[in-house]
Amino acid sequence: MPIVTIQVTREGTMAGAASLTAEEKAVLIKGSSELLRDVLGKPLESTFVVIEEVDTDNWGWGGLPALEFRRRRAAQAG
Amino acid sequence: MPIVTIQVTREGTMAGAASLTAEEKAVLIKGSSELLRDVLGKPLESTFVVIEEVDTDNWGWGGLPALEFRRRRAAQAG
Amino acid sequence: MPIVTIQVTREGTMAGAASLTAEEKAVLIKGSSELLRDVLGKPLESTFVVIEEVDTDNWGWGGLPALEFRRRRAAQAG
Amino acid sequence: MPIVTIQVTREGTMAGAASLTAEEKAVLIKGSSELLRDVLGKPLESTFVVIEEVDTDNWGWGGLPALEFRRRRAAQAG
Amino acid sequence: MPIVTIQVTREGTMAGAASLTAEEKAVLIKGSSELLRDVLGKPLESTFVVIEEVDTDNWGWGGLPALEFRRRRAAQAG
Amino acid sequence: MPIVTIQVTREGTMAGAASLTAEEKAVLIKGSSELLRDVLGKPLESTFVVIEEVDTDNWGWGGLPALEFRRRRAAQAG
Repeated sequence: MPIVTIQVTREGTMAGAASLTAEEKAVLIKGSSELLRDVLGKPLESTFVVIEEVDTDNWGWGGLPALEFRRRRAAQAG
Repeated sequence: MPIVTIQVTREGTMAGAASLTAEEKAVLIKGSSELLRDVLGKPLESTFVVIEEVDTDNWGWGGLPALEFRRRRAAQAG
Repeated sequence: MPIVTIQVTREGTMAGAASLTAEEKAVLIKGSSELLRDVLGKPLESTFVVIEEVDTDNWGWGGLPALEFRRRRAAQAG
Repeated sequence: MPIVTIQVTREGTMAGAASLTAEEKAVLIKGSSELLRDVLGKPLESTFVVIEEVDTDNWGWGGLPALEFRRRRAAQAG
Repeated sequence: MPIVTIQVTREGTMAGAASLTAEEKAVLIKGSSELLRDVLGKPLESTFVVIEEVDTDNWGWGGLPALEFRRRRAAQAG
Repeated sequence: MPIVTIQVTREGTMAGAASLTAEEKAVLIKGSSELLRDVLGKPLESTFVVIEEVDTDNWGWGGLPALEFRRRRAAQAG
């Protein structure tokens, strides 16, 4: 009876999307539940998956808000 | 100084409600705080309760989004 | 399909116990699952409960490790 | 590679603000990442910070919703 | 920069093992990190995975400790 | 009434230590509680801090167990 919690920034990956689409969420739920079944033999119906979308302002990396961190990293790389 | 975290899907149980009502939340807070007091002797004022409402799209069960899982289960049962 | 997470310090409440007993844990599991059933109508078999016991060194309150905080508070009260 | 999760009630501290400002969040991210660097030697870029704002209805203390608990406490003190 | 948290009961799936093996954990880490890369385009090095093993006494299902719940369910099925 | 959760790998930073020392934990508790007080005006006694130490096998980064990821990164840098 595993619980998988997936935390990601609230951002779209598809054109025009400001957050994950229902399809992307369904694929994450399916993939992680199948992983637990394949590796540990857990039946699909005993696994819960919770997806938490976090505003980019509320996510920190490198001591900075996430978008600011990415901007600086891209500037360094470029 | 316990912390109780209650995660539920964001759905109403009352007619017309799209999420938990303030009254339902208050009963969950009271009930879980009293449980910790009665079982472990923790004073009420040392317990925090956090209720997290999760969109049904973001909750997976049986490898599927929650509503889809319930639909299939109901179809099987019926 | 709720998830209830109960975090408490790892301490005994019974003479000679250094942590929660299996009986205390069973009562917490029963009580919190029944709370979700009674308040939100969630069937017992759709609720998961996870109890996390945290070493007292790893729990902070009032800017201090938990035991130190309690000691000072008791001294003030006394 | 630490993860720091900061849960607070969704309330403003600045006049007119109904939640944390982006500046306050940036200071929390910076401060907690630097704390991990200074105490445990963790490089800034290996620390993630997640800030979770919780509606006051969804936060319990003393067996009551948070605002009600504060109101009673203030009444007692006064 | 996703965070994946996998909570499972502390039990072995291999003969003689009382918990997950290091190999099983490595496969869970690889699989969930690749899922985030394949579905959302997240680079592997921006994903953290945390596996939490929970004692069976500390996990509740159906209002009962997990092992007791499984025992009853097996008895019903049989 | 904030809750700060700090997750780190279970490793020593001091010679001979296999995990965080009680002193390091006390500094993390003090520092994060003061941060919440200084930035958001939260009184020290309304903040809980929970430190979770995670075995290095149970922490993944870059699709690998944490120690393996560090080893490869050091080899690349060298």
